[in-house]
Amino acid sequence: MRAWEKNIRKVVPYVPGEQPKVTDVIKLNTNENPYPPAPGVEEALKGMDADRLRLYPDPTAEALVEAIAKNYGLDKEQVFVGVGSDDVLAMAFLTFFNSDKPILFPDITYSFYDVWADLFQIPYERIELDDNFCIRVRDYDKENGGVVLANPNAPTGEAVNLAFIEDLLQHNQDVIVIVDEAYVDFGTKSALSLIDKYENLLVVQTFSKSRSMAGIRIGYAMGHRDLIKAINDVKYSFNSYTMNMPSIVLGVKAVEDKEYFEKTTAKIIATRERAKEEFRKLGFQFGDSKSNFIFVTHPKYSANEIFEYLKTKKIYVRHFSAARINNYLRVTVGTDEQMEAVFAALREYMKQE
Amino acid sequence: MRAWEKNIRKVVPYVPGEQPKVTDVIKLNTNENPYPPAPGVEEALKGMDADRLRLYPDPTAEALVEAIAKNYGLDKEQVFVGVGSDDVLAMAFLTFFNSDKPILFPDITYSFYDVWADLFQIPYERIELDDNFCIRVRDYDKENGGVVLANPNAPTGEAVNLAFIEDLLQHNQDVIVIVDEAYVDFGTKSALSLIDKYENLLVVQTFSKSRSMAGIRIGYAMGHRDLIKAINDVKYSFNSYTMNMPSIVLGVKAVEDKEYFEKTTAKIIATRERAKEEFRKLGFQFGDSKSNFIFVTHPKYSANEIFEYLKTKKIYVRHFSAARINNYLRVTVGTDEQMEAVFAALREYMKQE
Repeated sequence: MRAWEKNIRKVVPYVPGEQPKVTDVIKLNTNENPYPPAPGVEEALKGMDADRLRLYPDPTAEALVEAIAKNYGLDKEQVFVGVGSDDVLAMAFLTFFNSDKPILFPDITYSFYDVWADLFQIPYERIELDDNFCIRVRDYDKENGGVVLANPNAPTGEAVNLAFIEDLLQHNQDVIVIVDEAYVDFGTKSALSLIDKYENLLVVQTFSKSRSMAGIRIGYAMGHRDLIKAINDVKYSFNSYTMNMPSIVLGVKAVEDKEYFEKTTAKIIATRERAKEEFRKLGFQFGDSKSNFIFVTHPKYSANEIFEYLKTKKIYVRHFSAARINNYLRVTVGTDEQMEAVFAALREYMKQE
Repeated sequence: MRAWEKNIRKVVPYVPGEQPKVTDVIKLNTNENPYPPAPGVEEALKGMDADRLRLYPDPTAEALVEAIAKNYGLDKEQVFVGVGSDDVLAMAFLTFFNSDKPILFPDITYSFYDVWADLFQIPYERIELDDNFCIRVRDYDKENGGVVLANPNAPTGEAVNLAFIEDLLQHNQDVIVIVDEAYVDFGTKSALSLIDKYENLLVVQTFSKSRSMAGIRIGYAMGHRDLIKAINDVKYSFNSYTMNMPSIVLGVKAVEDKEYFEKTTAKIIATRERAKEEFRKLGFQFGDSKSNFIFVTHPKYSANEIFEYLKTKKIYVRHFSAARINNYLRVTVGTDEQMEAVFAALREYMKQE
């Protein structure tokens, strides 16, 4: 070992879903939106002044913050923006989880939470979901350094209601509670309505799913202005200029078009419900997903084998190797046509076996 | 104090230079390039497919990494990219500075170094520059947890030669040495030629200055593949998808156009040398800047008063309030016309006083 190696932070990094280089695939592995961004985004892209790129962007990303605040009826002091919700969550962990007590999150949830905790050396405890992959709120009544909950949860897709969140908050008033709502627009009530009542609640959302903007990297947090000030202070101590000019300009356009947003999310929800029917007919089992993916398992077939088979058909879905979920597949809800291709391939696979 | 506040990380954030909202100003306060990005950037912007924004970008930003690697004759395993060099440096501090011994950097240097150290609770020691704001290499011969050096230094603009850097490396082989070369293209020899010989050397550069791309947020680090792997592991533990699609596409175009890059940097260097003449004629004192700014002081006039006066003329320069440098102004080198406006204003000011 070279002497300088001893000062290097050792981590086991998060492994993102595969981003295939080939383009003629049906890509249902990273929960992207099958529909293009709002039409105003393309227009703004075409009208963008390349010369402006020589200047630093607004470090406060004010135009984007204001557009988000306006969309939710908030003040701009209640909104924080970052480079995707991963950046927002990383900053939130760094800002809010500085206790000797463990932070709490489910054993089956977004697999980045323990990665951030390891990175920042935050103690944590994974609380087991029940056998139906549901969260038991009373499990979170213990002393802790903070709570993180994905709602809907990933990769299960299952959601809890507002009463559940409020119960959780009432029993955890001395720590920051983060509700990660990456998939909330596909049919769950946001905890946003609780931020005035609970100053310790941070709600995190993203443009990557319901806004069709995974490629532009915008996430945001909403909460009490003291929380937003604290996370902004940390952000300014990390990188003052996180949001580049295109992300600010195009992000504004994406959030302004409510009609397009509602139309495309409704389409995805409708396709999801049809897809549930089809999965059921084929004998798959799954919870009641409220997200833009369905987390399925089959009593007779191996998830990994289906995963590999679909790949040969140029259909990419997600398979996790973690305990308890290694016989599940997470299938993003695409267009009706894409889902039909999935079911055709599954029928073919089952016929062969 | 509310109970949850005790877990919040307390920081004193970096204050970026003012980004005036009005557009008809001469903006020489944040070291931006007065010339637009390479013509290929605008072309790529116009040809960009908005639909691709619905997909995640390549988490490895391979196209951009390869373009940078090719430009410097490196392998792609020797290049790391981030959201501006601030992001790269923040990740580097987090990755490489995990010792109980203090990291070392000059007392007068990029004012973000101590902010990152505070943020990540890294012990540090600021080593005084000499009275001419020059670095004494022997001051860095003491036990430490790492060294950071800006070359050219900011905000002084002064550079050290390769023999100096190699001397520093020879005496600091057990820790990571970061050379921050944000301004290197304006007339300093890069330490890049030393990365094969010194595995503990990380060279950091940016697209914000010489590549006219401050608005797109691209910085990069070059070094031994083991260093690059370590910082990539930390990056993947923080945010897998840092570089958005436009930054990858436009960054490639910016780095590919060597001819434009050489032409515009040569113009800035020529303007800088002319500007030094003018400053000298007006009685200003300054070191031999090798960057795209000049750090000036005047024996008879208050820097702060000049700063305020120039602002009334819609000319923005940078004034720092820190000890030892509070009677200095950092003036970005703009176009010849912009510099003439600065000197006209200065002459007027001096006549009035």
